[in-house]
Amino acid sequence: MCSFCAIAANEKPAVLVLEEEEMIAFLDHRPLFWGHSLLIPRRHYETMSDLPARLIGPLFEGARRLSLAMEEGLGATGSFVAVNNRVSQSVPHVHVHVVPRRRKDGLRGFFWPRTRYDSDEQAHEFAARLRAALEAHPPS
Amino acid sequence: MCSFCAIAANEKPAVLVLEEEEMIAFLDHRPLFWGHSLLIPRRHYETMSDLPARLIGPLFEGARRLSLAMEEGLGATGSFVAVNNRVSQSVPHVHVHVVPRRRKDGLRGFFWPRTRYDSDEQAHEFAARLRAALEAHPPS
Repeated sequence: MCSFCAIAANEKPAVLVLEEEEMIAFLDHRPLFWGHSLLIPRRHYETMSDLPARLIGPLFEGARRLSLAMEEGLGATGSFVAVNNRVSQSVPHVHVHVVPRRRKDGLRGFFWPRTRYDSDEQAHEFAARLRAALEAHPPS
Repeated sequence: MCSFCAIAANEKPAVLVLEEEEMIAFLDHRPLFWGHSLLIPRRHYETMSDLPARLIGPLFEGARRLSLAMEEGLGATGSFVAVNNRVSQSVPHVHVHVVPRRRKDGLRGFFWPRTRYDSDEQAHEFAARLRAALEAHPPS
């Protein structure tokens, strides 16, 4: 059993923040900032890609609600909501990080360094590859 | 008009990746990695908290589909899906970053440094504040 399934099954301790029929949230035990929570579906799915479409809405609506709770309950200015799929994913059970943010909290360098495209043609080629791949995944 | 509303209205150029009734995605012009896309609702909402519940599902289902397109179209190993709400949010029109990831791509130090709770009591106190705030936001 994966460690997040164990938490969902009450077989491993965690500090729970939200408990609902299909999902739970608990404090990350090594938070970026205090209050940093992990929101997971109770059932085991490895990545976002593996989630059934019907769970996407409730799960990210849960992230939105947690985000509001960070502001209203912890006085955060905003939030960071993120999912690592496979790469940088420490536990192979999909989890949404919801992290309280404040101005100048030290996470400024976070989204850097950025790069550039070598040319407009290269950018259009990347977009064309993504558009072609999306054709296999129409909106449900 | 905000710069993302201008892109959605075809009044500002962008390399589009996805165009649907309620949302579009386009390449970030300063990508973390080539293919890095921004997915936005066409209508202007500032943060995730401002999004109507009915849009959350389709928007993050779009992020899931883009994630699959990163793997299938660009050969990525996985993806990073993230939303900055207010803090670190460069354009005040909610946008979901979908970034292709590969092992050892250099983003390893990304989710660090982490901190710790001073005590179990402190962790439980944070959880209690979040749980209390969530009571105002039941599942829809």
